Amino acid sequence: MTTLRSKLGRAVRRLRRAAGYSQESFADKCGVHRTYMGSVERGETNISLDNLERIAKALNMTAGQLLVEAEKER
Amino acid sequence: MTTLRSKLGRAVRRLRRAAGYSQESFADKCGVHRTYMGSVERGETNISLDNLERIAKALNMTAGQLLVEAEKER
Repeated sequence: MTTLRSKLGRAVRRLRRAAGYSQESFADKCGVHRTYMGSVERGETNISLDNLERIAKALNMTAGQLLVEAEKER
Repeated sequence: MTTLRSKLGRAVRRLRRAAGYSQESFADKCGVHRTYMGSVERGETNISLDNLERIAKALNMTAGQLLVEAEKER
């Protein structure tokens, strides 16, 4: 089964790349460490609401919109 | 300003009551402690994705749907 964590990770990676950011520059924009962003994208992190909101804002979305996008991932 | 944490808390309380649960019975259904649920509903908790998903499931929603609902709160 595919967890929501891993779906979110795939969505963040897809949307981050579509917006033209490297993982490092995107982590900087979100105000988190690059290794943390890597763990989010690999679906390893049980992300908090505050960090979900930070990432969503950097993608010009709301946290809810980002999770709905994630739920569309396989 | 109203934080997303507090909007989520209000949405959880509203939807939990609409579904006819006391805070205690709802916490049991979600598999979390009643005091934790209280702190979520007061907007004090930086909730994790896994717990957000637990609460959403108990409300027969996805985590994304629950956050979108929260974002409609004032």
